[in-house]
Amino acid sequence: MIEIQALVHDVFGTVVDWRSAVTADGESLAARRGITGVDWQQFADEWRGAYAPSMNRVRTGELPWTNLDVLHRMALDHLLEKFGIAALSEDDKIWFNLTWHRLKPWPDSVPGLTRIKKKYIIATLSNGTVRLLTDMAKYCGLPWDTVLGSDVVQHYKPDAEMYQSAIHFLGNDDPGSVMMVAAHNNDLVSAARHGMKTAFISRPYEHGAKQSRDVKAEHDFTYVAKDFEDLATQLGT
Amino acid sequence: MIEIQALVHDVFGTVVDWRSAVTADGESLAARRGITGVDWQQFADEWRGAYAPSMNRVRTGELPWTNLDVLHRMALDHLLEKFGIAALSEDDKIWFNLTWHRLKPWPDSVPGLTRIKKKYIIATLSNGTVRLLTDMAKYCGLPWDTVLGSDVVQHYKPDAEMYQSAIHFLGNDDPGSVMMVAAHNNDLVSAARHGMKTAFISRPYEHGAKQSRDVKAEHDFTYVAKDFEDLATQLGT
Repeated sequence: MIEIQALVHDVFGTVVDWRSAVTADGESLAARRGITGVDWQQFADEWRGAYAPSMNRVRTGELPWTNLDVLHRMALDHLLEKFGIAALSEDDKIWFNLTWHRLKPWPDSVPGLTRIKKKYIIATLSNGTVRLLTDMAKYCGLPWDTVLGSDVVQHYKPDAEMYQSAIHFLGNDDPGSVMMVAAHNNDLVSAARHGMKTAFISRPYEHGAKQSRDVKAEHDFTYVAKDFEDLATQLGT
Repeated sequence: MIEIQALVHDVFGTVVDWRSAVTADGESLAARRGITGVDWQQFADEWRGAYAPSMNRVRTGELPWTNLDVLHRMALDHLLEKFGIAALSEDDKIWFNLTWHRLKPWPDSVPGLTRIKKKYIIATLSNGTVRLLTDMAKYCGLPWDTVLGSDVVQHYKPDAEMYQSAIHFLGNDDPGSVMMVAAHNNDLVSAARHGMKTAFISRPYEHGAKQSRDVKAEHDFTYVAKDFEDLATQLGT
């Protein structure tokens, strides 16, 4: 078996808990602007729900390359109208859209990644931009060696170009030396198709208590771990 | 004045002392293989001397895109022949070529960058590859938030694409929010041409005691600092 040299990570849901952070920012904004009667957890879920369909519009060529900040803003504007929220200024909207740059890690992410970093290169492989991922890492102390985002190749996962970029930049074009780490079965299946190793991290509450998909590993991945501390232990770090 | 958000750094010579590290690896290899009579400091200087001309062959289109590891190896093979060194195996040559991944920081680099990182995004903007820069950072503890290398855009500085990549990925396309940090006047003049802010770091011994160029700032840069600790102080970090 080829030696793993670099681990690249899905971020939203796998490393950070987007649901709690987006909900909290919505509630904080509502309190400041006197907005009542909005279920901000529902708002967060619908905002995240717009994610895959909006990227698919880019992936299929319906939209030209459009980065995730812009896609998030398009969805935000739509949801503010849908939820009947009219009290926000343009500065409020800019601030709220940047909630995706201020997400917070699951409790095991920073300690687990810090252990893994001692032996392996650790990087992102996320549909966020380089700037979003860098801002988030600084905001919450994620110890990435470097950041790979979708704007580097102007493609979104699961496009082949994304996985190939990690193999090229961090694996010297050797797919078996790079491992994709994610809480989402489909991301890992795509990575494996390009020859990468795979690690499943269990995040059964990413979508709340009623989560119905990705509650467990559904394929024969290289590693299956309950969290980053567990993965660090399995990797001997 | 637009607020600076990200600092991007030239690496070879500015952040790390390539001359001492390459010389030491040459001497260590010579001791292991019983090679005598080679001036390894001279060897290091000639290897580094091949850097700009070899990149220029790519920049002018004489060679297709060729990354720095491959250019370093072409120069190494030429110099081994020139210096009459025939005792190295292929594994030795691979190891020696990776000396550029194992360079060591000037004494002020890590403490100064660690202070600057508290307030600003810090990244590389180097002609090395992403992998070379990541390896080097892990090897010597450089605290980059992320790494931008020449293989991202397949261009070498001073090509415009390199400076534009930093402005795009880290400055949201606002050149005044990104500052180029280098010990080389020409790198900073190029960055300023693209609207970036500039910081000169003094490295009067990069090329040894007889250094004749870049001994001081020759233009009106945004900051002129004697080292990274001084720059950190000037930036209020």
